[in-house]
Amino acid sequence: MDDEFNELIERMDGALRERSLSSVSKVITDYDPHDVARLLEREDPRDRAIIYRLLSRNRALEVFELLEPEMRSELIQGLRDEDTAKVFEELDPDDRAQLIDELPAGVAKALMSGLSPAERALTAPMLGFDADAIGRYMSTEYVRLRGDMTLREALEHVRARGIGAETIYQLPVTSAHRRLLGVISLRRLVMGDPDDLVRTHMRDQPITLHSIDKAEDAAREIMDAQLLAAPVVDSENRLLGLVTIDDAQQILERTETRRAARQGGAEPLRRPYLASPLFGLVRSRVVWLLLLAVSALLTVQVLGAFEDKLEQVIQLALFVPLLTGTAGNTGSQAAVTLTRALAMGDVRPRDILLVMWREVRVGMMLGALLGGLGFVLASLVFGIEFGEVIGLTLIFICTLAATVGGAMPLIAQAVRADPAVFSTPFIATFCDATSLLVYFGVATWLMGL
Amino acid sequence: MDDEFNELIERMDGALRERSLSSVSKVITDYDPHDVARLLEREDPRDRAIIYRLLSRNRALEVFELLEPEMRSELIQGLRDEDTAKVFEELDPDDRAQLIDELPAGVAKALMSGLSPAERALTAPMLGFDADAIGRYMSTEYVRLRGDMTLREALEHVRARGIGAETIYQLPVTSAHRRLLGVISLRRLVMGDPDDLVRTHMRDQPITLHSIDKAEDAAREIMDAQLLAAPVVDSENRLLGLVTIDDAQQILERTETRRAARQGGAEPLRRPYLASPLFGLVRSRVVWLLLLAVSALLTVQVLGAFEDKLEQVIQLALFVPLLTGTAGNTGSQAAVTLTRALAMGDVRPRDILLVMWREVRVGMMLGALLGGLGFVLASLVFGIEFGEVIGLTLIFICTLAATVGGAMPLIAQAVRADPAVFSTPFIATFCDATSLLVYFGVATWLMGL
Repeated sequence: MDDEFNELIERMDGALRERSLSSVSKVITDYDPHDVARLLEREDPRDRAIIYRLLSRNRALEVFELLEPEMRSELIQGLRDEDTAKVFEELDPDDRAQLIDELPAGVAKALMSGLSPAERALTAPMLGFDADAIGRYMSTEYVRLRGDMTLREALEHVRARGIGAETIYQLPVTSAHRRLLGVISLRRLVMGDPDDLVRTHMRDQPITLHSIDKAEDAAREIMDAQLLAAPVVDSENRLLGLVTIDDAQQILERTETRRAARQGGAEPLRRPYLASPLFGLVRSRVVWLLLLAVSALLTVQVLGAFEDKLEQVIQLALFVPLLTGTAGNTGSQAAVTLTRALAMGDVRPRDILLVMWREVRVGMMLGALLGGLGFVLASLVFGIEFGEVIGLTLIFICTLAATVGGAMPLIAQAVRADPAVFSTPFIATFCDATSLLVYFGVATWLMGL
Repeated sequence: MDDEFNELIERMDGALRERSLSSVSKVITDYDPHDVARLLEREDPRDRAIIYRLLSRNRALEVFELLEPEMRSELIQGLRDEDTAKVFEELDPDDRAQLIDELPAGVAKALMSGLSPAERALTAPMLGFDADAIGRYMSTEYVRLRGDMTLREALEHVRARGIGAETIYQLPVTSAHRRLLGVISLRRLVMGDPDDLVRTHMRDQPITLHSIDKAEDAAREIMDAQLLAAPVVDSENRLLGLVTIDDAQQILERTETRRAARQGGAEPLRRPYLASPLFGLVRSRVVWLLLLAVSALLTVQVLGAFEDKLEQVIQLALFVPLLTGTAGNTGSQAAVTLTRALAMGDVRPRDILLVMWREVRVGMMLGALLGGLGFVLASLVFGIEFGEVIGLTLIFICTLAATVGGAMPLIAQAVRADPAVFSTPFIATFCDATSLLVYFGVATWLMGL
């Protein structure tokens, strides 16, 4: 036994010297939990936290229970340490998913309780949550009830334990093993017969968030269901925390700000407008603007290719901004409509054919209207032939722009990009280039250039 | 006395025959409340409701108290009637403001209680609220407490009265005359010492909404303060109802949808995307598209004015979409940033000079960057002189576009238009036309055309 322990120490020293998390992970899986617990007690706080975090979920629970109470709280301190968190934050997401199992719910609770939201955010990588997981936003200060309490007992329990809780308006009901059984509102607790059991008044299939759920989706779920708070559980349905409607609101506001900024072709500002340094404003816009300008070089190319035709009929040049502008407007109308419909859950990426078929028809109708108008106006000033070119071009480009503009946000969502980012700015550039191609194509054909 | 009453009846018959609300209003101000009460009892339900609604606030209270209980409830029924509401809904807002005083809070409460949200919306014009006033969204099902209750008594009161209430998580505390004194949360009620007085635990300067406040502003106030509900009062600080965080969330969601649609140059859809008829999609976009296309005729005019210069240097035409596009992007970046900053309350219309001065500098920096790049690229292909034209034009148009794009949402807000409506779509058109003017101006000057 002690030989084995010495071997463990030796192997671990080697792995730690290499600074290789995967070696550390491999070493500790081979040994008895008792040995691992003894090992942890010898290490310095930082290495102790790192080694512990690399244990599988079940072993982590066993080892935690073998530690002395004092050592437990030292371990928790080590896990909270910012430097330790950085070691895991810097991991490649795939490696992290492979190396870091969920923490046992009890350890997670100990780790997060008493922390401010900012501190919790720092600790979150230790729990294995991605930056956009709802687990990062949950509060671990809650009061939980048992199903066999009477409402009177439950209310007493809330009075006794609720002072530091983030909210007491939605109260999770759990089994002895912290498994979520239901949720009861304070309203039910107050309004119900005090002798009734919590079990009979709780919602036993409450809306439940999983700690690794995407924060935005989870927040929207809370809002849509008009909940004041929803419980967050791990993969074994053990309660980890609560997310309140306030948290949800903030998550959605941030998402909306980011979306609005990107839709306008800028990065979101980190601070309020007037408090942002000038250089921050420039930085938030310059990359997008350069990208768009560089892709607009395409329009120079396209026009360059038709330079001889422009020389033949100089009037063609006069309509270039009108046509590219109209195509851009049609495309961005469709893109904004669908981006919003996606955000509200009205359409999904798999509806893409349905959406495109609708947009083809909408685009054709809009094109027919604008094209008719364009035909009349252009005919009056530049003659019938010119009117036909403008009218026909408008029909084609409106159809094309609406279809592509409507499809783009769905494609973006399907490949897990932000629909707002893909939509408006890039559609404008796309529409500029394609409408020029269509324009000169139609002109060449009808005017026999 | 009876002579006077007969005269009243006669004059009222005349006024009602004329269907003139202002005559009715004039007639009833001249008579004693007792006579008015007797008159009301004689009229049919619809005329009764209309006459009553034209009383001034104080007389309305007096008259109401003179009515028999049965007549009171008949009057309330009449006031709730959809046809009666239409009479007032159709009034010109100015006339309405002049003719309709606030209803006494007690009558308003009676009028609205027990109604579904949809029914409340129908009844709202009777209360004199504009379509976008927060009064239309409030719930009148609440439990109110007195300041001299103990927490124990208050909790009992909530248990007894709270069943139909919209929320019991925020409880208004009022005087005997329904005047709002404060708000106490159910949490305080549950957690505090049962023998304490409500008065000592309530927030005595709670965030309070006025029934005529703009719904969007009121909703944002609730969200920003992270309140679960806020009380709504009339101009005499008498409690009318509560607005919950759910209501606020819905108001903001609707506003956001409208804003997003308008920013993309479309009207919001009335139904979810896939449920909208095709014609509904066309209708939501066609007006904007036509407006933008017609205003884009300006660019045809501008280019037409420079047709001879285009013929001399045909290469000038090649850069038209790139330049108008870049100006449009720069302008819409600024517009979206400021629209969002306005919505979040980070800037106000009176900050306009500050904002413009910031945008002038941001635009110049962006212009210098893009202009430098444009100069290099255009010089390489078309020669130094051409490069200078492109570079200089970019500096000017970026500066101009950022400044105007940034100012536009603030101006829109100042004249009480929706900033999103004024910003992106119109800025694109504005930028197209002005950038062409700048472009040919610079070209004429530098190339000596």
